[in-house]
Amino acid sequence: MNYLITNVHILTMDTAMTEYPRGSIAVRDGRIAAVGNFEITPEYMDYTVIDGDGAMAVPGFINAHTHSGMIPFRSLGDDCPDRLRRFLFPLENEAMTPELASLSARYACAEMLLAGTTCFVDMYYFEDHIARAVQQMGMRAFLGETVIGQPCCDSPEPHGGLEYGERFIREWAGDPLITPIIAPHATNTNSPEKIRESFELSQKYNVPMSMHVSEMDYEVTYFKEKFGKTPIAFLESLGVLSPQFIAAHCILAEEGDIEILARTGTAVAHCIGANTKSGKGVAPVKAMLASGVPVALGTDGPSSGNTLDTFTQFDLFAKFHKTANRDRALFPASEIVRLATSGAAKALGIHDSVGSLEPGKKADITLVETKSANMFPVFDPYAVLVYSAKSANVDTVFVDGRLLVRGKILTGTPLEIIREDLSLGMADFSGKAKILAEQI
Amino acid sequence: MNYLITNVHILTMDTAMTEYPRGSIAVRDGRIAAVGNFEITPEYMDYTVIDGDGAMAVPGFINAHTHSGMIPFRSLGDDCPDRLRRFLFPLENEAMTPELASLSARYACAEMLLAGTTCFVDMYYFEDHIARAVQQMGMRAFLGETVIGQPCCDSPEPHGGLEYGERFIREWAGDPLITPIIAPHATNTNSPEKIRESFELSQKYNVPMSMHVSEMDYEVTYFKEKFGKTPIAFLESLGVLSPQFIAAHCILAEEGDIEILARTGTAVAHCIGANTKSGKGVAPVKAMLASGVPVALGTDGPSSGNTLDTFTQFDLFAKFHKTANRDRALFPASEIVRLATSGAAKALGIHDSVGSLEPGKKADITLVETKSANMFPVFDPYAVLVYSAKSANVDTVFVDGRLLVRGKILTGTPLEIIREDLSLGMADFSGKAKILAEQI
Ligand SMILES: [Zn+2]
Ligand SMILES: [Zn+2]
Repeated sequence: MNYLITNVHILTMDTAMTEYPRGSIAVRDGRIAAVGNFEITPEYMDYTVIDGDGAMAVPGFINAHTHSGMIPFRSLGDDCPDRLRRFLFPLENEAMTPELASLSARYACAEMLLAGTTCFVDMYYFEDHIARAVQQMGMRAFLGETVIGQPCCDSPEPHGGLEYGERFIREWAGDPLITPIIAPHATNTNSPEKIRESFELSQKYNVPMSMHVSEMDYEVTYFKEKFGKTPIAFLESLGVLSPQFIAAHCILAEEGDIEILARTGTAVAHCIGANTKSGKGVAPVKAMLASGVPVALGTDGPSSGNTLDTFTQFDLFAKFHKTANRDRALFPASEIVRLATSGAAKALGIHDSVGSLEPGKKADITLVETKSANMFPVFDPYAVLVYSAKSANVDTVFVDGRLLVRGKILTGTPLEIIREDLSLGMADFSGKAKILAEQI
Repeated sequence: MNYLITNVHILTMDTAMTEYPRGSIAVRDGRIAAVGNFEITPEYMDYTVIDGDGAMAVPGFINAHTHSGMIPFRSLGDDCPDRLRRFLFPLENEAMTPELASLSARYACAEMLLAGTTCFVDMYYFEDHIARAVQQMGMRAFLGETVIGQPCCDSPEPHGGLEYGERFIREWAGDPLITPIIAPHATNTNSPEKIRESFELSQKYNVPMSMHVSEMDYEVTYFKEKFGKTPIAFLESLGVLSPQFIAAHCILAEEGDIEILARTGTAVAHCIGANTKSGKGVAPVKAMLASGVPVALGTDGPSSGNTLDTFTQFDLFAKFHKTANRDRALFPASEIVRLATSGAAKALGIHDSVGSLEPGKKADITLVETKSANMFPVFDPYAVLVYSAKSANVDTVFVDGRLLVRGKILTGTPLEIIREDLSLGMADFSGKAKILAEQI
């Protein structure tokens, strides 16, 4: 179906940051056919008109790091020290199933779509089941099977994710919306050999690779003590860093690390919400960007970042980095919006097809209404997006030219059913979770 | 009208933090008559039933510091250095009128009510006009006329607010919902004599006093150089600190200052969003609370904090203080919710009437729905309020037993009309604002 989106304030996020305060967008065959103040010729006669009613039109947001299978963990042990070992690993081992991962991923997609996110990078287990859920929801995604050096819910053998991952990559190669990737869990939860094997897999199939990097104090200490190197320097010595590597977090990246990331073209998925909720710190993004490191924003999983929405990251990004640098003028709002749109697309290597509203690009488009109480007045639309807007202001979302959200409601399976299915599917999980929670 | 709120998960926020996972609340003659799992006897027959549909019921939030007249300034010059002098003061002097302050306050009340806030502390100009708008909207508020040592929009003479303020206090004394207060602008924008006179006014009429304190680097430097004291120590030496003093910000409070605040019973309105957006820093709230300083949360004005909602403060509070202290277990979510409910009521000296859901208290009640995508699952309701919930999840709000929001919609004048009136009323302001914005 073709669409004519009218009456929108368009923030194209193109290189010139072109804006059309009152324009239209034509969507034809899944791509953007025209943007701005073009003439509405007879060729648009049979397009479906979407009246934007003064909303802002922005490129669909890209969430560069999450774990879509983890909705069941949300609000569980949030303020508990060492929750990874007390909640996450035990429940993953005892109660995570392919069905639950799939139901959770479907819910996560619903939540992200309703928040204006059109593309995300995922790392979890049972990724093949997750991929089918994502496909059903119509989202664009980089999906990676986790490789980890311990038995886990989808593999009794450590590093079973390598074999699973290869099968998964073969199966999904060439999908128009889903890009299979390989996702070794972290620098310190895999042996160097298996990190290297993961990299070789990514080279063999020419797919990206994503991993938790320089996130934990004890991780950095371990590498320095064992190898006399930071985790990032160690990864470089392994030869695995490249523009296809998406390093999540990098909170503890040092000066030399930033130089390595820049030199190798490694992208960083910066998860400010999750990093600060756990009290870990603020990654040196100012220095990263100054050195040319491609940076995107990630929510991290729903147990770490709680909401899967980009607006929360916008606001936190502004406030944490301005405060860390004691500079209110650092990172003006437009630069922050860029990190989740064109900048993120560059970081993921998909900027030729998404990340800005330009003719020829895939039609991944989010409309943010300006009628709610928090959205008035609009002197600077970027400032409104960063400091005021919330997911609930997202009105309409297109992915690949398909209308997936309209009037704040999913056009496909209703959220109510998606939630009810997940709720029923997680009965066993919830019972076990409550027992763990009572032990605190 | 009397109400029976059914089918709610009640977080009473009483001293024992009593919860009723599925209970009811009876509201009679403006007060809470019963809470919990009481028997629905025939006396409730003619009560209007409000089906909570599984929502969380919490005490209405208290916003301890804002400037309700400043909605027109929102999204203007957000990332601009020295915006106070480049945007705020010039526009206040050239374009702020009693009508505009009133329209803005009405809008601010609408926004706060829709965000579950039932009571706020205000400091602005034309406060008498603001008070009438607040009264019309039915909110509970502490409203203070600004006293400042320079000509301002409602007084050609410096410190004209003292005379205005006294008239204002006399006029509104005894109002059931509005508590008039006096609001000297800041430690460094008034002479010591006028700060002292403001205090004497507050004593004469037995009303609270609120002021910006230890917010700016240059403010602290000035006091140290001129008086050899921090601003807080200076205020103590003036004899103006007391449990009726609400000190906004106190970002730069030092160890000795915290001891002074605790000893004098001075309350702090902590505005984490505004303080960090301007890169000023994070007030030492952990130490304040440990010393017994009463702390409440404030949004600051819509130009500094952008949204007037408490949920944004919750999330920022958790993340900034956990990160500043490198401790994910610090300030569990329930303690953070307390800072905007019972803790805030204590800080403002109104805990005998509001701040918790207990029989006999005024019925200031907020229902937060749990059906939206960001609100599932709920293992820990406090964690959901702090890390997931947003203003848009607020479904129903009572102030003083009056139903002001139902189904996310104001029961009185529609938001659309309130916005339209403000939009028309700020035409002159907007024109002048755009000229200033173009000069950046
Ligand atoms: Zn992660
Ligand atoms: Zn203020």
